[in-house]
Amino acid sequence: MNKFTIAIHGGAGTILKENLTAELEEAHRQGLQEALDAGYEVLMRGGTAIDAVKASVISLEDNILFNAGRGAVFTKDGTHELDAAIMDGSDLKCGAIAGIKNVRNPIDLAHRVMLHTDHILLAGAGASEFAKKQGIPHEPEDYFFSAYRYKQWESTRDSDKTILDHTAHDKKFGTVGAVACDAHGNIAAATSTGGMTNKKYGRVGDSPLIGCGTYANNKTCAISCTGHGEAFIRAVAAYDVSCLMEYKGMSLEEAMHIVVQEKLISIDGEGGIIGVDAKGNAALIFNSAGMYRGVRNNEGLNNVAIFQ
Amino acid sequence: MNKFTIAIHGGAGTILKENLTAELEEAHRQGLQEALDAGYEVLMRGGTAIDAVKASVISLEDNILFNAGRGAVFTKDGTHELDAAIMDGSDLKCGAIAGIKNVRNPIDLAHRVMLHTDHILLAGAGASEFAKKQGIPHEPEDYFFSAYRYKQWESTRDSDKTILDHTAHDKKFGTVGAVACDAHGNIAAATSTGGMTNKKYGRVGDSPLIGCGTYANNKTCAISCTGHGEAFIRAVAAYDVSCLMEYKGMSLEEAMHIVVQEKLISIDGEGGIIGVDAKGNAALIFNSAGMYRGVRNNEGLNNVAIFQ
Repeated sequence: MNKFTIAIHGGAGTILKENLTAELEEAHRQGLQEALDAGYEVLMRGGTAIDAVKASVISLEDNILFNAGRGAVFTKDGTHELDAAIMDGSDLKCGAIAGIKNVRNPIDLAHRVMLHTDHILLAGAGASEFAKKQGIPHEPEDYFFSAYRYKQWESTRDSDKTILDHTAHDKKFGTVGAVACDAHGNIAAATSTGGMTNKKYGRVGDSPLIGCGTYANNKTCAISCTGHGEAFIRAVAAYDVSCLMEYKGMSLEEAMHIVVQEKLISIDGEGGIIGVDAKGNAALIFNSAGMYRGVRNNEGLNNVAIFQ
Repeated sequence: MNKFTIAIHGGAGTILKENLTAELEEAHRQGLQEALDAGYEVLMRGGTAIDAVKASVISLEDNILFNAGRGAVFTKDGTHELDAAIMDGSDLKCGAIAGIKNVRNPIDLAHRVMLHTDHILLAGAGASEFAKKQGIPHEPEDYFFSAYRYKQWESTRDSDKTILDHTAHDKKFGTVGAVACDAHGNIAAATSTGGMTNKKYGRVGDSPLIGCGTYANNKTCAISCTGHGEAFIRAVAAYDVSCLMEYKGMSLEEAMHIVVQEKLISIDGEGGIIGVDAKGNAALIFNSAGMYRGVRNNEGLNNVAIFQ
């Protein structure tokens, strides 16, 4: 049996201990542990990596503290537009959605695109039509309301500025994601986000883009990114980790280090990446002050963390 | 002065001489030559690679024979949804749009996203709003009407099948694209498409996705793809060529050969890729029966072709 491992993130950015109350810090840690356990549970029962990453991401989407699903930030129009992607490293199958509204679990919808269409990426109104045909749970705007997010939006809605899920003291790139290696040695990745506060014009970041924010291939790695999406797109960050492993023979950790600490920094790409390989090794690397994260495996590792 | 080169494509697929009338073949060749000359003209005047690829793609978008801009195929709803991307290899700046309607030149809009926003990819209704703010030329549905495309759509609209811009005898992956290397040694890539006939649910293919259908980096290559978009996404095809050059030291042609003739074929990815490097070398490689294509440089090469 292969070592099995799940790793998750809940966003990266200028997350400093002095700016989080003890209560908020504890709530975030608890949310991370719950999401980690949800995925781990699937792996422990002999389930697949793809089901594990989905379970973890659904848990994070359902948690109002993280910028995805329920906790999504407000767009310029005062609504929520959600993006997500999922990829199975065993056969390179993948699904993604961009700019979808009112769907409770965008990662479930992305998975259904993968399973039930010949396509990979569905966007906007068309994606919503597919969601309705699938009978997937929808929620009214209220469900996505949080006083905290609303204040973020209020502070910027009269400007053309987008903000990266931050307050004055807490710049955070809000995205959630999971990567897993199951007991059969298959790996998978999933990412989900509400994007940038006050975003407009149907802006799509790296999260739903295969090769940029999300990628999985049993030969190399499963990757989920969080950070300044445009930089991760220009860097084709997720697939770059895979190529450094495949073509340069680097380990997962070496390849992720090059991409996060050298390549992304050279283009002002703040954020982080989580990854696993098909032997169950995990790495969680970020160039920002903090990254909400967790990792658990069947050899006793079970850890959530926020700061450096 | 660097050797300067432009290469273009107008789609790939089962394009066989016996299925094209002499008139249609001649019309396609003429359209390719015009588009090639439009880009070459820019390079000859000392213009930039990015302006050259834009000029060539605009020429192809304005030509009703090619599936992009004016000649775009019909969606399931009987309208047209256009995707495009452009990338500058000198600074990795890029812009893209997906699922836009009624815009005369999608590549111009993608370029404006690159120049005038902090974003890379805008999709759907939001992208249309941006187009209107930019005052970019819009056209009524009539402009995009062609009897040929309408017949394609009529034959399939009552089914859930998408078709890849084909008739029974002529399966063609309709996309247009250009790559260029200018006299200063900078390179760029641009791709534009109307996607698949009868596509629905806001399906987005590889064309507007950086790293998949379009990529440019002075260090390696500028790439534009045409083919079965989903396979090109799973392969992260454009960036894979770049990585094989950067990490394995391959030439442009060697890297493109691996991606088109080995990697894409292994996942049933029919189509082709055009590329240039920063020395002005060009390659045009496809694994389908034909690819509408052309290449011209300042050393006397000036060639358009359709079949193997």
